[in-house]
Amino acid sequence: MPKPDQIPDFPISDDRLHDECGVFGIYRHLDAAAHSALGLHALQHRGQEAAGIVSYDGEHFHSHRALGLVGDNFNSKDVIRTLPGEMAIGHVRYSTTGDTVLRNVQPLFADFKFGGLAIAHNGNLTNAYGLRKALVDRGCIFQSTSDTETFIHLIAISRGANVVERVTDALRQVEGAYSLVAMTREKLIGVRDPMGVRPLVLGQIGESYILASETCALDIIGAEFVRDVEPGELIVIDKKGVHSFRPFVPVATKFCIFEYIYFARPDSNIEGKNVYQVRKDIGAELARESPVDADVVVPVPDSGVPSAIGYAEQSGIPFELGIIRNHYVGRTFIEPTQQIRNLGVKLKHNANALYLKDKRVILIDDSIVRGTTSVKIVDMVRAAGAKEVHMRISSPPISHSCFYGIDTPSSEELMASTHNVEEMAKIIGVDTLAFISYDGLYRAVGEEVRNPVQPQYCDACFSGDYPIRLTDQEAGPSPTQLSLLTERE
Amino acid sequence: MPKPDQIPDFPISDDRLHDECGVFGIYRHLDAAAHSALGLHALQHRGQEAAGIVSYDGEHFHSHRALGLVGDNFNSKDVIRTLPGEMAIGHVRYSTTGDTVLRNVQPLFADFKFGGLAIAHNGNLTNAYGLRKALVDRGCIFQSTSDTETFIHLIAISRGANVVERVTDALRQVEGAYSLVAMTREKLIGVRDPMGVRPLVLGQIGESYILASETCALDIIGAEFVRDVEPGELIVIDKKGVHSFRPFVPVATKFCIFEYIYFARPDSNIEGKNVYQVRKDIGAELARESPVDADVVVPVPDSGVPSAIGYAEQSGIPFELGIIRNHYVGRTFIEPTQQIRNLGVKLKHNANALYLKDKRVILIDDSIVRGTTSVKIVDMVRAAGAKEVHMRISSPPISHSCFYGIDTPSSEELMASTHNVEEMAKIIGVDTLAFISYDGLYRAVGEEVRNPVQPQYCDACFSGDYPIRLTDQEAGPSPTQLSLLTERE
Amino acid sequence: MPKPDQIPDFPISDDRLHDECGVFGIYRHLDAAAHSALGLHALQHRGQEAAGIVSYDGEHFHSHRALGLVGDNFNSKDVIRTLPGEMAIGHVRYSTTGDTVLRNVQPLFADFKFGGLAIAHNGNLTNAYGLRKALVDRGCIFQSTSDTETFIHLIAISRGANVVERVTDALRQVEGAYSLVAMTREKLIGVRDPMGVRPLVLGQIGESYILASETCALDIIGAEFVRDVEPGELIVIDKKGVHSFRPFVPVATKFCIFEYIYFARPDSNIEGKNVYQVRKDIGAELARESPVDADVVVPVPDSGVPSAIGYAEQSGIPFELGIIRNHYVGRTFIEPTQQIRNLGVKLKHNANALYLKDKRVILIDDSIVRGTTSVKIVDMVRAAGAKEVHMRISSPPISHSCFYGIDTPSSEELMASTHNVEEMAKIIGVDTLAFISYDGLYRAVGEEVRNPVQPQYCDACFSGDYPIRLTDQEAGPSPTQLSLLTERE
Amino acid sequence: MPKPDQIPDFPISDDRLHDECGVFGIYRHLDAAAHSALGLHALQHRGQEAAGIVSYDGEHFHSHRALGLVGDNFNSKDVIRTLPGEMAIGHVRYSTTGDTVLRNVQPLFADFKFGGLAIAHNGNLTNAYGLRKALVDRGCIFQSTSDTETFIHLIAISRGANVVERVTDALRQVEGAYSLVAMTREKLIGVRDPMGVRPLVLGQIGESYILASETCALDIIGAEFVRDVEPGELIVIDKKGVHSFRPFVPVATKFCIFEYIYFARPDSNIEGKNVYQVRKDIGAELARESPVDADVVVPVPDSGVPSAIGYAEQSGIPFELGIIRNHYVGRTFIEPTQQIRNLGVKLKHNANALYLKDKRVILIDDSIVRGTTSVKIVDMVRAAGAKEVHMRISSPPISHSCFYGIDTPSSEELMASTHNVEEMAKIIGVDTLAFISYDGLYRAVGEEVRNPVQPQYCDACFSGDYPIRLTDQEAGPSPTQLSLLTERE
Repeated sequence: MPKPDQIPDFPISDDRLHDECGVFGIYRHLDAAAHSALGLHALQHRGQEAAGIVSYDGEHFHSHRALGLVGDNFNSKDVIRTLPGEMAIGHVRYSTTGDTVLRNVQPLFADFKFGGLAIAHNGNLTNAYGLRKALVDRGCIFQSTSDTETFIHLIAISRGANVVERVTDALRQVEGAYSLVAMTREKLIGVRDPMGVRPLVLGQIGESYILASETCALDIIGAEFVRDVEPGELIVIDKKGVHSFRPFVPVATKFCIFEYIYFARPDSNIEGKNVYQVRKDIGAELARESPVDADVVVPVPDSGVPSAIGYAEQSGIPFELGIIRNHYVGRTFIEPTQQIRNLGVKLKHNANALYLKDKRVILIDDSIVRGTTSVKIVDMVRAAGAKEVHMRISSPPISHSCFYGIDTPSSEELMASTHNVEEMAKIIGVDTLAFISYDGLYRAVGEEVRNPVQPQYCDACFSGDYPIRLTDQEAGPSPTQLSLLTERE
Repeated sequence: MPKPDQIPDFPISDDRLHDECGVFGIYRHLDAAAHSALGLHALQHRGQEAAGIVSYDGEHFHSHRALGLVGDNFNSKDVIRTLPGEMAIGHVRYSTTGDTVLRNVQPLFADFKFGGLAIAHNGNLTNAYGLRKALVDRGCIFQSTSDTETFIHLIAISRGANVVERVTDALRQVEGAYSLVAMTREKLIGVRDPMGVRPLVLGQIGESYILASETCALDIIGAEFVRDVEPGELIVIDKKGVHSFRPFVPVATKFCIFEYIYFARPDSNIEGKNVYQVRKDIGAELARESPVDADVVVPVPDSGVPSAIGYAEQSGIPFELGIIRNHYVGRTFIEPTQQIRNLGVKLKHNANALYLKDKRVILIDDSIVRGTTSVKIVDMVRAAGAKEVHMRISSPPISHSCFYGIDTPSSEELMASTHNVEEMAKIIGVDTLAFISYDGLYRAVGEEVRNPVQPQYCDACFSGDYPIRLTDQEAGPSPTQLSLLTERE
Repeated sequence: MPKPDQIPDFPISDDRLHDECGVFGIYRHLDAAAHSALGLHALQHRGQEAAGIVSYDGEHFHSHRALGLVGDNFNSKDVIRTLPGEMAIGHVRYSTTGDTVLRNVQPLFADFKFGGLAIAHNGNLTNAYGLRKALVDRGCIFQSTSDTETFIHLIAISRGANVVERVTDALRQVEGAYSLVAMTREKLIGVRDPMGVRPLVLGQIGESYILASETCALDIIGAEFVRDVEPGELIVIDKKGVHSFRPFVPVATKFCIFEYIYFARPDSNIEGKNVYQVRKDIGAELARESPVDADVVVPVPDSGVPSAIGYAEQSGIPFELGIIRNHYVGRTFIEPTQQIRNLGVKLKHNANALYLKDKRVILIDDSIVRGTTSVKIVDMVRAAGAKEVHMRISSPPISHSCFYGIDTPSSEELMASTHNVEEMAKIIGVDTLAFISYDGLYRAVGEEVRNPVQPQYCDACFSGDYPIRLTDQEAGPSPTQLSLLTERE
Repeated sequence: MPKPDQIPDFPISDDRLHDECGVFGIYRHLDAAAHSALGLHALQHRGQEAAGIVSYDGEHFHSHRALGLVGDNFNSKDVIRTLPGEMAIGHVRYSTTGDTVLRNVQPLFADFKFGGLAIAHNGNLTNAYGLRKALVDRGCIFQSTSDTETFIHLIAISRGANVVERVTDALRQVEGAYSLVAMTREKLIGVRDPMGVRPLVLGQIGESYILASETCALDIIGAEFVRDVEPGELIVIDKKGVHSFRPFVPVATKFCIFEYIYFARPDSNIEGKNVYQVRKDIGAELARESPVDADVVVPVPDSGVPSAIGYAEQSGIPFELGIIRNHYVGRTFIEPTQQIRNLGVKLKHNANALYLKDKRVILIDDSIVRGTTSVKIVDMVRAAGAKEVHMRISSPPISHSCFYGIDTPSSEELMASTHNVEEMAKIIGVDTLAFISYDGLYRAVGEEVRNPVQPQYCDACFSGDYPIRLTDQEAGPSPTQLSLLTERE
């Protein structure tokens, strides 16, 4: 939940937006938990803080959840053995707040009248507080601060005759952007919100079906891509096969365009488009829209690389790794000395001076959030002797917070919400600064032009056009009792 | 909950009954958490598996719970600092089952419509399953397998106008034996079940009030004993002082007589009687009831010591530490080799041969549960050269399971439920074996005689006279969905 | 090493002297490591800080060392399996200083020209610094601050033709009080220093031989006591049996009399005397020497219990557990709040008021070191209502530091070194205070009288008669480079 | 030490050679330890298994060593505070064997007659066994299996008058390839072996001097590059400044050419050449030497990227990220299920099918070691639909083990030692396979041609021309007692 006042000031923020979650589910596979671990590993870029898997062995549900990387916690036979069964769902999580207690790690599990249900979701409910308040009034007891638990209580109190009816019942009460996977004793369930803001795909390997946030999670286990789960679709997989339901009134879809720009893995395909290709195309559009006479195109690694390749190809200016990234940072230097804090960006990036000194440099980055990293990167590039620095950004200026499952600073912290491009260029210290235009961006994702009345994608973080009502935001500050307990384990 | 099929076969069981919990609460003390840690340390004999404290600082509740001893987990300033505030409650726990996940560690906390409430209890609800089933049917979601959570849901769904009414509402629905402490933002609450099976005392230090399972928890913090909380009494402590409520229909009280025999600390006073004194008196009664011509009275340490002193004094036979206990066992040798398993009792006890060799030995122990330890102890005493071994037990034969908060094997595992005294003597390998008589025991606690129609104490583990209805037991095996999730953290 | 300036001020000192170590070795047993673990568990009272075992499987040496209790670290099959072989030695350690890094945990192992050797010792070398300095000058590199490593270097540089010669060579250079066990690829070796200050016994079980600090380590594994290793004896056990060597010039023996008073376990037999019996006899001597008209004899548990029984028997005054000890303290409350610090003694002891109120109390304790605990105990007894408090101590006043392997405060911190008995009584707050006399003590251990010219035991901590030269002490402060490296792991 | 029989079969080997270490030292900096942590972080690619720092505060040496990444262990104020002082040295380590006990983690410290000395080195001594044997015979006791300890003993027994003389003394006895940093109470010392096989540079920041394996460690702390330490140079830095000594007879230098190909970070400059530039130039040479008609140049990320850029630029064929790397692998899946084991390469790499399907692909990788990864990569590329796969390798075939500080499989495991290029192409499954030629490689590093009589670089892993004598190898298998002790901590 992007509660502005809780955004932590990470000492070494990478100043990027962060997707909050990735989900995975697999039905009827002899090695369900191991495959879930692999799928989550492939989705690790969607959340590095914690991971969890719940399996069902025909009799019992089994759960293992841990803070940290999938590869550090689900890597041994011993762990996989504790998760028997042919059905499993899993989750990776990026947390926006400091409450890294295990009880907030998904999948959540609850024991209902009709049997157990495990659930994991990627996204954010925009009316979660209101629902929660009503549920607490009714006598429901919450154990976590996660939206997912709101959803669970709605299922629990539903009078629906079976799980699908109860889930449908709950879905109809929530607003927001979400892709979720759930598992009962007999069914694997997948849902994408009516506008399809967050991704979810269906895959198959032999007789097994898989639900996952991105296609790269299918690739890693050798599964075939079947199709994207459609916006507003409720998929139920059981022994009779895959069943599709449409519990919602149809609305125009609004896939998050930032998934293409930054969140998704470059080797994933979303709605028929290859992410890496889209990024290259954005780079090419940028080269056409905002050309500059220069010696070298240098990406801010790693996220700027595909657009830089596209820019270089289009412009004919050589592409060089003028900035080298250190991949061993990990959860590094969490509580650093002042000395380390000041060095900041160098922990991750170093100038490769030979390609910068006395050069006119085009720096390609995917976005500017607070701008703090950009200032340091440009500073480093200048210190390495660059003659000119021209920055090209493969997204429009980010000026609005996201309330649909992405960790964004409050709008006043977003550089583009309080400064125009010229001011930003000055602060960042570049000779020129240009962002991709809306239409350039929409062209790169295959549209002719952005429909200003009804944009084909959710681009609220750029435009402020929020397609889903912000019910909780409109209701004002959230009730304080939601965070009464400060817990240590 | 004494679910017979879940009693673990501890490799090195000490073959004793175990109290399941101790509770502590303190109101308006500048150092509430540190005092709670001390109080729980004094109550550590009532539960060594886990401990927890929840404090309230006027704005937030703070919780720290940990597996292990109080002294290993609440011993540092760093921990105590995370528990600010002038009000706190705490809990120590002995778990009968393997599910040692933190979510089962008390105090439990829930966020209600009217604000947060933390609760900890010692005892067992005898209609917990039935209540739970009804609550789940209603849409309540349980996060633990503890009785306490049932109680919390009952409070949550109560329509009572305030906390006291809601607690009262919940109390009227539960059956069982329990002493509980609870804390809201303004009140410290203590309750003893209508029959007062488990102990609870009220103490005072300066302006602060304390609730604790035993008086030894008052002594450690220098607090004065005010009085026992009475059976069926609901005490509410707030800024106006101590308020007493009587939410139940009065019934005859039934304090657990085994608290005197074994559970309580010898330096505690319960209902006006000093525990050590009662144990000595039982020893003296035993000496009168079952005298034997012998050379030495030897306690099985440590629990047999007071009765052995009493026996020796009454009989004039010298008291000697013929068996030495190693106090460093701790959580020792949990998964030992077969070699270690066979040695069993020697990890804790060693014969002090000088006082056994060629001697006629009277061994004093507090109880015989499965009898496994007794066999090994007698074996060891004989191996040390004892000429005769006469065993005297300071409780009647334990032949029935307890359902009121004590971890007991199922009745078929209790030696006395399937064997008479002579058979037991033979199996254990003693020349003579005698248990204290009911009347001898009742005399030691100050009664003239046991009232066979309406016993003055709960002695169900000896007599099978269960004073509180065993609702869940009567309803048959518990619904399986209660333990669907096997969790690893 | 008792370096006065490094004695830590443990927040909750128990104000006792502490033995520094226990040793164990076993030759040719199929389950050598498991038996070593058991033996060390029985010797845990000699050192609770760390434990280690080295085994030899005919090809490789295997080592496991850990901080903490034997029962917490050598309790699983997994650990025991890492220690294969039919020969093993082990060690438990009480550390006087804060350097609890693993590299100081014994047994130490070194790879010599002639093969590996593991060694563990109990005691202290009084010329270790001098030897160490000479060894460092020669180019030897020390990895620990333990005396044992000095011994290892002496073996390494010896020109002896075989292990026994080399060990003998080393033994002749060291001064001090020590019992050691060592293990080569073919031999188990045991040595007691010429005066036999520290204990060491030989046991047998089937074809296997055992060396251990005390007989209780034989009892736990069912081994038979063969004999004490004699002062100055070097025992070598190999496939041909047990060989006895006498590498030293014979001198009068000086067994540590404090082993009887406090260090050894009451069920151990040392040099033919049962420790518990000696303690009772001291109590009886005290009753004769320092009688007092009183109502009750109360031990300071646990160490005061045997003498209190002896005193009570001799005097006819009833023995009562007027002070109850909490055995769950463990490594408790290491860094407590001020609140906890002030309570001090109550973490371990509580008054059992019924037996103290309005009573004339004889308190029996084993010793007074700094006196801090005595003050608190008496305070607690008085607060419980005692009318009179008479303290009787089963050792003479401790007025001198030990340099032979016992952790003692510097002499100026010893209450008896700066105050006479009357002053001590006043400070401690007792009506009367009496210590056992030298002759009373010597009678209790079987002598007619203490030989003032050549005392039959080492009683230097009382008398200041140091039987072994204090070479390092005489040479003045130790060279500073010994503790250059402060290490964190 | 590359002992062939100890090379672990890492389940998910990345099939690369691995540098074993990186070193760092800093003299007279107020924040010496924090800067060392940063420098080691920048050198993390040279060793990820363990890291250590020793500081000196003018009075004491302080050490912290830990298994794992610098960023996970030296990231907090708490740790940095335990390392006070203005002088420090540090080390990162890649271990070839399973003995990851802390005692093998550098820097090592020893307390000499003349005071303490800490030392860390990168490389391997080729006569370490022989020296060690002689030292053990003399009575020296080794605590680790590291070469560095051999060096320490040589210093300890030297009769040199001061540290520099003693270090010189030791240096003259060792053979091998090494760069080392050492620190005494007054001096920071740096040495490069006579042939300068491993890198070492001198930097400066204000009044402080730095020694580091690579220039990227200077960049991270904002230090300036002064010069490479020269082969055979002994640098001593003290309060009078930087002193240069030449303890060795001058010989032709032999810098490790593989540092350019793979080990060093691309942003480092070595002996005046930028590593990234050299790699691009190798790619260009490859394009000239082994051109092929194709649609796309695809690097095996990350190490193949610079050469692929060079190849693409030279050939005019588009460069595309046809393989995407998952950087979250970490120490992932160490003990995976068979399922995970089979997937192998996919944990790290995924095909980006859009750029491979129906394409003629040129795959660029830096080397082929065992060939196992190449087989899987090509398999994955083919499965993604590639029409042709042409592999170009930016090193000559690796056919010989390295004995100079690089972890290499034994020669029989090296694919190129048992197969010619055609056979390799067949096994790997590529249409064509070509390696850079010796002369192409030498041109890329600035030579006109490789001098076949006296190669300008050490290229033994390709050519088998070992410039430094392999004394231990020639002497046959190493003495077994070196690994007698198997240790668990």
